[in-house]
Amino acid sequence: MRLSRYFLPILKETPKEAEIVSHRLMLRAGMIRQQAAGIYSWLPLGLKVLDKIGRIVREEQNRAGAIEVLMPTLQSADLWRESGRYEDYGEEMLRIKDRNKRDLLYGPTNEEMITEIFRSYVHSYKDLPLNLYHIQWKFRDERRPRFGVMRGREFLMKDAYSFDTDQEKARDAYRRMFVAYLRTYRRMGLTAIPMRADSGPIGGDMSHEFIILASTGESQVFCHKDLLDLPIPGEDTDFSGDLTPIMDQWTSLYAATDEKHDEAAFAAIPADKQVSARGIEVGHIFYFGTKYSEPMNAKVAGPDGVERPVHMGSYGVGVSRLVAAIIEASHDDAGIIWPEAVAPFQVGLISMKPGDAAVDAACTSLYAALERSGIETLYDDSDTRAGAKFATMDLIGLPWQLIVGPKSLAEGNVELKRRATGEREVLPIAAALARLGATA
Amino acid sequence: MRLSRYFLPILKETPKEAEIVSHRLMLRAGMIRQQAAGIYSWLPLGLKVLDKIGRIVREEQNRAGAIEVLMPTLQSADLWRESGRYEDYGEEMLRIKDRNKRDLLYGPTNEEMITEIFRSYVHSYKDLPLNLYHIQWKFRDERRPRFGVMRGREFLMKDAYSFDTDQEKARDAYRRMFVAYLRTYRRMGLTAIPMRADSGPIGGDMSHEFIILASTGESQVFCHKDLLDLPIPGEDTDFSGDLTPIMDQWTSLYAATDEKHDEAAFAAIPADKQVSARGIEVGHIFYFGTKYSEPMNAKVAGPDGVERPVHMGSYGVGVSRLVAAIIEASHDDAGIIWPEAVAPFQVGLISMKPGDAAVDAACTSLYAALERSGIETLYDDSDTRAGAKFATMDLIGLPWQLIVGPKSLAEGNVELKRRATGEREVLPIAAALARLGATA
Repeated sequence: MRLSRYFLPILKETPKEAEIVSHRLMLRAGMIRQQAAGIYSWLPLGLKVLDKIGRIVREEQNRAGAIEVLMPTLQSADLWRESGRYEDYGEEMLRIKDRNKRDLLYGPTNEEMITEIFRSYVHSYKDLPLNLYHIQWKFRDERRPRFGVMRGREFLMKDAYSFDTDQEKARDAYRRMFVAYLRTYRRMGLTAIPMRADSGPIGGDMSHEFIILASTGESQVFCHKDLLDLPIPGEDTDFSGDLTPIMDQWTSLYAATDEKHDEAAFAAIPADKQVSARGIEVGHIFYFGTKYSEPMNAKVAGPDGVERPVHMGSYGVGVSRLVAAIIEASHDDAGIIWPEAVAPFQVGLISMKPGDAAVDAACTSLYAALERSGIETLYDDSDTRAGAKFATMDLIGLPWQLIVGPKSLAEGNVELKRRATGEREVLPIAAALARLGATA
Repeated sequence: MRLSRYFLPILKETPKEAEIVSHRLMLRAGMIRQQAAGIYSWLPLGLKVLDKIGRIVREEQNRAGAIEVLMPTLQSADLWRESGRYEDYGEEMLRIKDRNKRDLLYGPTNEEMITEIFRSYVHSYKDLPLNLYHIQWKFRDERRPRFGVMRGREFLMKDAYSFDTDQEKARDAYRRMFVAYLRTYRRMGLTAIPMRADSGPIGGDMSHEFIILASTGESQVFCHKDLLDLPIPGEDTDFSGDLTPIMDQWTSLYAATDEKHDEAAFAAIPADKQVSARGIEVGHIFYFGTKYSEPMNAKVAGPDGVERPVHMGSYGVGVSRLVAAIIEASHDDAGIIWPEAVAPFQVGLISMKPGDAAVDAACTSLYAALERSGIETLYDDSDTRAGAKFATMDLIGLPWQLIVGPKSLAEGNVELKRRATGEREVLPIAAALARLGATA
């Protein structure tokens, strides 16, 4: 993409309303724009990151055997009356009346609706296990929306729902999501630690939050230091096999959120292995048995012909929140430092002298070579002073900057800068392309 | 995907509430489920088609130079008070109060919000032309939602908005979208004809609806027969060049919706070239000048330093509606016939005898070869009788059926059926794979 044809509204001033670094940087980098309290537009750069995160989530859900659907944003209140949550949910639920005075609501989560879908079609144990997920906008009318997309009201969530004949099989389903989540966050460059957690308004008796450690985290968390270095299950993980050993490895070491914290158990960890830190929740998984299937009458017949309520779990990933969480975990004073897998572009190609025939020709040919090789490139062809160009590239945090100026170019060279380390290297054009994985 | 692990809830009965064929077939093929009047869940098969249509729309928007953003579903009422449309819009607008009694609404369209984004960041003619689009769920509280996703209340729309310094440049932007739309629909296997149309509540003095002809169409349309055979602009179309010749070619022949119909002009067409038919609207484009930029104060400074309101247009594609429209245009008594580009899977692989070692081995190896070659395959490994398997495959309309039975297999053969024509051919395994573009 040529910057001159792109829409990248960089802010020079640091917005006063932004209290945390990710919110500040997302506004400054032209990633989002607030449209109402806790309601944001995603500008082109922000949307690219959001889409990449969504794609990783989707790939790992599919790998773990979950199947994608898409439920609507609006739901009928009657569905929530069946489960008893319509009155319980409180003011966070956005209640709506349509032109015929029917009660609707903007879905804050989808246990009821997916249970309705399930019971409408599935009646036999032979069709299980089943895990259906979707990535859809949700709304929670937070009393105090803040921190940008970290705690917005309209937010993008991946939520999966598993259905099994009994508790043991439901625990298998839970383990598949547990392992999928480990892979999902790591692919985004994050170390997310599963911690025993409170199940809150979803209910149920087994629950883990996936937490990344960041000094700006919203809550206090406690864990064993070795969790930070545990290996992540590989791409070849057999999700139809027994995942108990993997989950046991992760759950045998202490890790808990504030609400579930056990001082005595934590004190039993060797002092140099005790981690007490701030954390950001980026996912939450639940096993809640028949909490919804029973009142909503979602039953399947077993091999014996007897109908029993299905055992369910639900599994959330905060897709829009992750954009901010990744920035909290990966930035410096100059701006964002995107991990490769979620970077909006891989390379920022900077022309130091647009209008100079040799520089223009070199940039055009580098840009074409990179794009041809499938390396997403933002080509700054704008007529701005060098300092501003560098500041913008550092701010938006693309992994690589490829700098083309008349002096180096006269010697056949360009400069390559690694955003994460600040390392710069002057090298011949062909070598720079090779370093970036492109062919000339 | 193995059918035994998929979620494809085929209905045996024809649902009574469905009045048109696309609605009936989408329900029977397990593509959608109604959750409330005009509000649908997309089940796995339906979502796959929806995503493919979205991808084609996106590719052609990008090709034409439009840039993707994502605006939220909910909007502040204040924004619509600025343009004067809050009161005007009538009962189709879903009005909402949040917990703080602030007026929100579920966006039925986004002229106001995009104008707000534009005026916040863009102040100079140097940053134009600009065309921003998004693909997002909208809500229109139809008095009588019907025909499934053809006239739903919550629906997925692509809407683009162009900004230019003057009317002539805005017309260039209009032409780029006009040409992009011709390409978009053709790639989905449709012949969509641009017709002069009423601009309705969006306003403006230039407007075309893109209409596909189908006997079940909602409105009467009139056009010159030659429009059905005009060539579609190629992939190599230069969108930065002059597109006037292409647009002139399309607009010089008579084509109008009922509201804009001119009996005299139509009568002047040679009788054998007069087409009077039912049509389905699948897109609508508008040029409306300064209708929003003036009241909302969206101005840019020209080269002379004088600020003037920008000239705008908006460009909609009914993404969710297209799923139904394509079915209306492409089905037979047995079910859907998907055009290749939007088919949920390319191939349905049918095992005629699951459990038979030779059949299982052949199917597994064919399935692996197809998937390896990037050919999406639905592998019916279920233990159902042959008649039901064939009926299901015909119903869901995948372009190819690859049938593996013990008798043919004993001679090294499989059977390949083309859904669109019904042609069947018995041929060796390697030849069948080659026919499908796969390597063994």
